[in-house]
Amino acid sequence: MRITALAGGVGGARFLRGLLHHARHTYPVTPDSDPLQLTVIGNTGDDITLFGLRVCPDIDTLLYTLGGGIHEGQGWGRADESHHLAAELAALGAEPQWFTLGDKDFGTHVYRSQLLGQGMPLSAVVDRLSSRWGLGDLGVRLLPMTDTPVETHVVVEQDGEQRAIHFQEWWVRHRAELPAERFVVAGLDRATPAPGVLEAIREADVVILPPSNPVVSIGIILGVPGVRDALRGTRAPVIGVSPLVGGRPVRGHADVCLRTIGVEETSAGVAGLYADFLDGWLVDEEDPMPGGRGLEVLRRPLLMSSVDAAAEMAGAALDLGLRLRADRATA
Amino acid sequence: MRITALAGGVGGARFLRGLLHHARHTYPVTPDSDPLQLTVIGNTGDDITLFGLRVCPDIDTLLYTLGGGIHEGQGWGRADESHHLAAELAALGAEPQWFTLGDKDFGTHVYRSQLLGQGMPLSAVVDRLSSRWGLGDLGVRLLPMTDTPVETHVVVEQDGEQRAIHFQEWWVRHRAELPAERFVVAGLDRATPAPGVLEAIREADVVILPPSNPVVSIGIILGVPGVRDALRGTRAPVIGVSPLVGGRPVRGHADVCLRTIGVEETSAGVAGLYADFLDGWLVDEEDPMPGGRGLEVLRRPLLMSSVDAAAEMAGAALDLGLRLRADRATA
Repeated sequence: MRITALAGGVGGARFLRGLLHHARHTYPVTPDSDPLQLTVIGNTGDDITLFGLRVCPDIDTLLYTLGGGIHEGQGWGRADESHHLAAELAALGAEPQWFTLGDKDFGTHVYRSQLLGQGMPLSAVVDRLSSRWGLGDLGVRLLPMTDTPVETHVVVEQDGEQRAIHFQEWWVRHRAELPAERFVVAGLDRATPAPGVLEAIREADVVILPPSNPVVSIGIILGVPGVRDALRGTRAPVIGVSPLVGGRPVRGHADVCLRTIGVEETSAGVAGLYADFLDGWLVDEEDPMPGGRGLEVLRRPLLMSSVDAAAEMAGAALDLGLRLRADRATA
Repeated sequence: MRITALAGGVGGARFLRGLLHHARHTYPVTPDSDPLQLTVIGNTGDDITLFGLRVCPDIDTLLYTLGGGIHEGQGWGRADESHHLAAELAALGAEPQWFTLGDKDFGTHVYRSQLLGQGMPLSAVVDRLSSRWGLGDLGVRLLPMTDTPVETHVVVEQDGEQRAIHFQEWWVRHRAELPAERFVVAGLDRATPAPGVLEAIREADVVILPPSNPVVSIGIILGVPGVRDALRGTRAPVIGVSPLVGGRPVRGHADVCLRTIGVEETSAGVAGLYADFLDGWLVDEEDPMPGGRGLEVLRRPLLMSSVDAAAEMAGAALDLGLRLRADRATA
């Protein structure tokens, strides 16, 4: 069973960990079983170069979460982390100091930066990082959306003047509280999908959009030339999970991002962003969104309060996808 | 009082810390005093790029030792150090694993590499690192011998075949036990002295060569075009301290290095390397080396078993230099 997911950071990673948990219990590996093979297309739009090192926040959150190294409470970064290197950089007066990087986490960034500096494409680096985290053994293949460096900048207004800052500065330093005029994704128009990305979408049995940020995570992946067309063209049902519960994101600032691009901060608003390829849509139990026009809407509790809760959500999304796929086969 | 010293790593750093200790007690700062201003020309010949980061072992040992951050027992690296980043690199299978880098130490390397990557010359980077370690307040100015990247390689014979390995691999990994045919210092012939290096030698009141390795530390600095001429031409007495006690180095592998370049592993042999500019030479109490031919030889205990012992050695070298300088003035 080939599942392909587009994913941002914390929300996407937790959802996909739930999906693996669900699959382990529902589809145990037997000689004649069809085990779940999950291809994750990770957002690299919020990548940033810090202290001369390339940092891929979403990719790393996916690696650490699926590989069992995540700081559970934070949702990002490594468990049992220390911050001696960052303290030394602060003593040296190095900027920025608003982005927290732990010592183990720095290991990832140093390693990746060295390989990128040697000319290795990001997808090959991610492949090596995936080995370190045992993703292959879990049936997971992690692909960056593109090997082309892409960076999201936010045009903000401060003291009556507009200026562009890196997405991470807006998100982490200013907690998305600086009024944002628009997002500018440098490099996206000339990006090409990383090897395997389009094939994974075209050849999947089910495509899943976890409850990642629809603007700055999923939205950026959709902006890689070719990805949206592949989603429109794939024979696999595309199942999405709303990132909003009661009109607010469970985590992060998806509502602010939606307002910035002029889209209603509702599940219906988000589904509208995916309207040209979305087949199934999970919304929260209380969500008033109606189904219709070829979109099957399913109501489920959407709080990933535990791995089990995430597994149930992911299982519901997967089952909906498999059902729609079976319907198509018999249609 | 302007003192200029050429220095390698541990031995040079401990000696110079002793010199500062001596000066603080002998020349206290008063309104009409002439405080010691020490310019240190540090060896960069054993610099190495590890994990894509530029590491300057001798410069860093000088910074940490003079600035009070050194791991006293090791003689190199930071005190109270952890190794989480290196452990992560090992988990990733990154090579080499024979060079120990701690988390705080990595802070120095990340910072330096970022600035070098932005085009800043090494001397300007060292200036910033010196500020972090308060060297200016100690009256110390640390200069790399050159801003040109220089790397010492060792031609070794292994299994009947000759190959060149980085000096650090020979020194740290193989503990100088692999038979060395010769040293090749890549980049040295086209290196130019860092800003201030030649002036510091020419305008010093006394020039001191601490008991650093005469081949791969002092010897490399002397190989930077212009440095040897400046030492020959300076009016300052040049005082050296033998790195050998009883024909053996107190630390490190100076004897092996001397054998490799075909020089007798004695204080006389080392002094011969400096013969064209050396005026005073401190040797161990038991050292049989005679003086003569314009070289004043002074016998002193040369074991830097404590800061006080190093201060006494350094004080003796400084006093000899000041005496020779006074003799010249009255001659």
